[in-house]
Amino acid sequence: MTIPQTQHAAVRQGSGESASAPLKQVDVSSPQPHEILVKINWTGLCASDKSLIHDEWAGFGVAMQDGTKGICGHEGAGVVVAVGDNMHGRWKVGDRAGMKWVYSTCGECEFCLNGTDELHCPKQLNCGFTAPGTFQQYAISDGRYTSRIPNGVLDEEAGPIMCGGVTAYTACKRSMVKPGQWLVVTGAGGGLGHFALQYGKAMGMRVIAIDAGDAKRDLCKKLGAEVFIDFSTVEDIPAEVVKTTTYGAHGVIVFSATKEGYASAPAMLRPGGTMVAVGLPKDPSVVAGAPPLMLALKRLQVVGSVVGTLKDVEEALDFTARDLVHPILTKGELKDLDHYCRLMMEGKLAGRAVLKVS
Amino acid sequence: MTIPQTQHAAVRQGSGESASAPLKQVDVSSPQPHEILVKINWTGLCASDKSLIHDEWAGFGVAMQDGTKGICGHEGAGVVVAVGDNMHGRWKVGDRAGMKWVYSTCGECEFCLNGTDELHCPKQLNCGFTAPGTFQQYAISDGRYTSRIPNGVLDEEAGPIMCGGVTAYTACKRSMVKPGQWLVVTGAGGGLGHFALQYGKAMGMRVIAIDAGDAKRDLCKKLGAEVFIDFSTVEDIPAEVVKTTTYGAHGVIVFSATKEGYASAPAMLRPGGTMVAVGLPKDPSVVAGAPPLMLALKRLQVVGSVVGTLKDVEEALDFTARDLVHPILTKGELKDLDHYCRLMMEGKLAGRAVLKVS
Amino acid sequence: MTIPQTQHAAVRQGSGESASAPLKQVDVSSPQPHEILVKINWTGLCASDKSLIHDEWAGFGVAMQDGTKGICGHEGAGVVVAVGDNMHGRWKVGDRAGMKWVYSTCGECEFCLNGTDELHCPKQLNCGFTAPGTFQQYAISDGRYTSRIPNGVLDEEAGPIMCGGVTAYTACKRSMVKPGQWLVVTGAGGGLGHFALQYGKAMGMRVIAIDAGDAKRDLCKKLGAEVFIDFSTVEDIPAEVVKTTTYGAHGVIVFSATKEGYASAPAMLRPGGTMVAVGLPKDPSVVAGAPPLMLALKRLQVVGSVVGTLKDVEEALDFTARDLVHPILTKGELKDLDHYCRLMMEGKLAGRAVLKVS
Amino acid sequence: MTIPQTQHAAVRQGSGESASAPLKQVDVSSPQPHEILVKINWTGLCASDKSLIHDEWAGFGVAMQDGTKGICGHEGAGVVVAVGDNMHGRWKVGDRAGMKWVYSTCGECEFCLNGTDELHCPKQLNCGFTAPGTFQQYAISDGRYTSRIPNGVLDEEAGPIMCGGVTAYTACKRSMVKPGQWLVVTGAGGGLGHFALQYGKAMGMRVIAIDAGDAKRDLCKKLGAEVFIDFSTVEDIPAEVVKTTTYGAHGVIVFSATKEGYASAPAMLRPGGTMVAVGLPKDPSVVAGAPPLMLALKRLQVVGSVVGTLKDVEEALDFTARDLVHPILTKGELKDLDHYCRLMMEGKLAGRAVLKVS
Repeated sequence: MTIPQTQHAAVRQGSGESASAPLKQVDVSSPQPHEILVKINWTGLCASDKSLIHDEWAGFGVAMQDGTKGICGHEGAGVVVAVGDNMHGRWKVGDRAGMKWVYSTCGECEFCLNGTDELHCPKQLNCGFTAPGTFQQYAISDGRYTSRIPNGVLDEEAGPIMCGGVTAYTACKRSMVKPGQWLVVTGAGGGLGHFALQYGKAMGMRVIAIDAGDAKRDLCKKLGAEVFIDFSTVEDIPAEVVKTTTYGAHGVIVFSATKEGYASAPAMLRPGGTMVAVGLPKDPSVVAGAPPLMLALKRLQVVGSVVGTLKDVEEALDFTARDLVHPILTKGELKDLDHYCRLMMEGKLAGRAVLKVS
Repeated sequence: MTIPQTQHAAVRQGSGESASAPLKQVDVSSPQPHEILVKINWTGLCASDKSLIHDEWAGFGVAMQDGTKGICGHEGAGVVVAVGDNMHGRWKVGDRAGMKWVYSTCGECEFCLNGTDELHCPKQLNCGFTAPGTFQQYAISDGRYTSRIPNGVLDEEAGPIMCGGVTAYTACKRSMVKPGQWLVVTGAGGGLGHFALQYGKAMGMRVIAIDAGDAKRDLCKKLGAEVFIDFSTVEDIPAEVVKTTTYGAHGVIVFSATKEGYASAPAMLRPGGTMVAVGLPKDPSVVAGAPPLMLALKRLQVVGSVVGTLKDVEEALDFTARDLVHPILTKGELKDLDHYCRLMMEGKLAGRAVLKVS
Repeated sequence: MTIPQTQHAAVRQGSGESASAPLKQVDVSSPQPHEILVKINWTGLCASDKSLIHDEWAGFGVAMQDGTKGICGHEGAGVVVAVGDNMHGRWKVGDRAGMKWVYSTCGECEFCLNGTDELHCPKQLNCGFTAPGTFQQYAISDGRYTSRIPNGVLDEEAGPIMCGGVTAYTACKRSMVKPGQWLVVTGAGGGLGHFALQYGKAMGMRVIAIDAGDAKRDLCKKLGAEVFIDFSTVEDIPAEVVKTTTYGAHGVIVFSATKEGYASAPAMLRPGGTMVAVGLPKDPSVVAGAPPLMLALKRLQVVGSVVGTLKDVEEALDFTARDLVHPILTKGELKDLDHYCRLMMEGKLAGRAVLKVS
Repeated sequence: MTIPQTQHAAVRQGSGESASAPLKQVDVSSPQPHEILVKINWTGLCASDKSLIHDEWAGFGVAMQDGTKGICGHEGAGVVVAVGDNMHGRWKVGDRAGMKWVYSTCGECEFCLNGTDELHCPKQLNCGFTAPGTFQQYAISDGRYTSRIPNGVLDEEAGPIMCGGVTAYTACKRSMVKPGQWLVVTGAGGGLGHFALQYGKAMGMRVIAIDAGDAKRDLCKKLGAEVFIDFSTVEDIPAEVVKTTTYGAHGVIVFSATKEGYASAPAMLRPGGTMVAVGLPKDPSVVAGAPPLMLALKRLQVVGSVVGTLKDVEEALDFTARDLVHPILTKGELKDLDHYCRLMMEGKLAGRAVLKVS
């Protein structure tokens, strides 16, 4: 495979609302000893890419770092085209490879040492945030933290699964809902919710989907929800959940990033139930939790969840390889990145957006 | 043993702030088939007794029920003096017996069937709240839910252990802090906190006590705290906790029923850490939890805890029988109940109050 | 509902191989305060009934006790026709009710106090072993430990589910295999195995079935096995399992009560895997376990499992109510009990036998 | 720090029983990019070193590999004297460092990805078995898998803690015995047992020590055993354990590598109890487990355990840093290695042997 010296990349220019990321010609890097070079076929376009490019999180002091060279993106899937010196035992040219939010971890801190928790590594780098991302044709990836894409998973599916998919999957696991028990998913027809429905069902849970409108109802039912509650027509949603489940649900995953979403969730739970906080509201006054009296008397759990470990990603991909979970995609091309960001801002983008790169 | 036909009991009269509970002569009941009659030697006086007698929770619609016959109290220890027909396989006259907050459970609901959770039994009765309590010399107790008091535990200790003690013990368990890991206890020198210090240490945890003043410091150190943080002199407590523990504590139990206590606790935790909510603030706007961004990125757990199961009580008592945990007591007599309620209101009561009954 | 004074029951007479259990006319009992009277519609006929009637376990000192009045059987389903004084809060005439191996527990020992473990109650009574069983039209049942049969479960299904079904279900739970992971079931086409296949699949596991012959293969595949290994044609079964699963299976349930079955199971497991011992070989020299070197280096778990708690039974029935798990039945009548025992001895009985009683 | 070009090492010569490991002058290696060079101050001498040097495991096909260059040993503690190119973020000259049985792991397999299980990495290297060990003054160590030795732990203690210590510590964790519950330790006065006593006690367990003789009794009592059972005078040990614990112990760790040790352990357990297999008998017919009937009816767990993960090692060392656990040591010098091997063979070596290297 001949590797060109330059390539197309969507490089951020300008700042704030008017920022854009048009294609530019940039150099292709060579992998260092622990690195591999991945030819990106498809990359997902995540809402956080849009937020980073347009400085939406400046208020929190969160912005793309110089290390990215202006190249965002963290849902990339493709094929290995060059292998660093120390990585020949792990990777060979032609292997399918996936890049995701966590670009690399240190491998020796408290959290890396305990495999469930490398996500908290304080020295981690992140794709498209502190390291160059997947909005380019040839991306350098840390060979120790790159994911393998199994047979049966398409490149265009892999990116969203490694981000939204694994987020929904770990949220299902964090809910501690067991086969045969009830899981409520708020925002069930959305980009994360539609994943959680499918994972929950594949894990043997009974899923109650909450969203609005007949289109969402049909989608949620098709993807495996046993019950759909339309929040645009049902007044007292917790009461409806309790009626369906006798004592309340065993778990609820809050994807809807609203104050009301967080406030109403605990009342949907039975004693001992678990609420999983995933949606991130812009309103800084929102607290995910419950009044101490309710939390104590019902002995609830409230837990946070975000993306997933390297192992979680492997597991999440495996559900797709086994044809149990698939993302709903809107497909485009990298050159039209700004167009899709705009659609996203306008709320006109159905499912997860993926862009053809090479 | 001859059982008198009448007895002394502290019976509530009046209502609101001016209510009182002077000794009266009342009938002694005979045990029904599943019941036993317990001669109460000592009873604890819990802050919630004071609240119930004085209608402090009327705003929440919480008040002593008729079933109590005006007799409050839920920390009673004594000896069995009569046994109902069906209870001869379990109890005999002379056995030591303890009564606690949960008076009885139904034994067949979703929650009773799963032993960790009978506390949520929707048909439960509660001592001194829906059933007559322990502020009397001869109390009827459901033989299926009465606790045995082991050798090595004094009657005056048993009551507080079955209430505040087991609350602290289960909070320690719910914290999921393992031997060798860090547990923060807020309000560590108080009625619940001083129990948690001792249980935490006996369970192999490294305990950081938070309270104010030198007397509390000395007490906490004596009871096993490895580190004491004085909130009256230390500005940034979470920062101090993180400094001591490198990444933050593995668990924090919030006994201090204040908005600030709940707001600052999550920041004391390392990624993956657990906050246990026990203290019940009067301010209904307090939410035990954390901003979704912090909860998700640090993947924290926030859990509620209250008293403990019959099994938890047995375990909590066993730590005292093994001389590892003891309450700090202020001792009085049942006839002076109103006096001790007043001391409690004025914040002048050290440790847990126990009253001699028989 | 009029309750007759006498009824038909299959009462054991004789002993040893030539024992039989013909129908006799016996008295109908009245429920004591904590009891209910159940009109049995269908009863399962378990292999252990056959063993007890025919003294097959005399060598272990295990025999039907006088308390049974000669009436065996522990898989009964029917309807409540009378309610003892203390049980009116729980049961009413007309409720569907199920009786199972555990007839009653004491409710206050170490094990009863911890809901997962009431099965170890040293004071438990057992249907058809120490208390009269379900081979009669009107059976007394302890109202505190009787199971409710939900809508969607037929009476003829309920008995086997409360015995073999729940045994398979708890074995699946004890295997600790998670959704997406591999579970091996030995004896997969048998009376317990065909349940485990279905429960495993419904819990999201990938099931490898081991049995012999094309009929079993077809059955196992139909019931949800992803892979079938025919032990009559495959030489090295552990090697085949490892080939299919890369590192070995995450769990294996041993239903086949043979020395070879137990000897080969550990080698099917990946490091950290779990073997569940259920099948009970007659050969007393069989040890369920593994050589210490293999057990230690692979850090395996070997766990035992038997029937299930009251809560497990409720959960197991719910899978049938939801149409996910069904037993394969051979149906007969109580009067032909001896005939079906003989078929069982001759290995000619397909699936689980159930007998119509009323 | 000047690093010499050559050094002393104890290099194996000959084979079988007559093999020896006299000091020789060998080259000092330079660290590759991911490696560090550790000046070994003290090394433990483990029974397995003696076995490897003397080909005692030839029958199992287990022998020192060429990669060791004849240098055995896997309990080394010292100080970093040179750092490979990629390791400067992790290590600096002067850091204290410890080498142990696992020399390195691949970091990307199923097991490395799940931090609790990197011990099963199929590509792992082992100190003194497949890679040069710690019987040399300057040892190369994989910087990614080297342990840090905390303040408060002496170099001579660190080696045995990273091997026997962590083995005992993880066995305690694997026993699932909770604070206040009973743990039996067989071989409690031995090289592994005396560690388990101390860890068990520090973790809040109540420890029953089994060994023989007054010296062992005194030792075990001093190290924290609540009860000592002398197997040379007590006939029925399981009965004694049951008498002490009412229903049997919650856990038992089998360090004694005998058929009898494994056969009697399950009977010491209460229902639901756990047996941990650590001792490795020479007799290949020994099976760690229990008869299926006992295993199933008592629903026991039998689990294997060996050494511990990098995180376990860190935790085990921390207990010593906190002055809760210390090894009993016999101290010598590296030049007398053969002498100590001989003492070991003759059973004349008390506690763990450690040899001064530099």
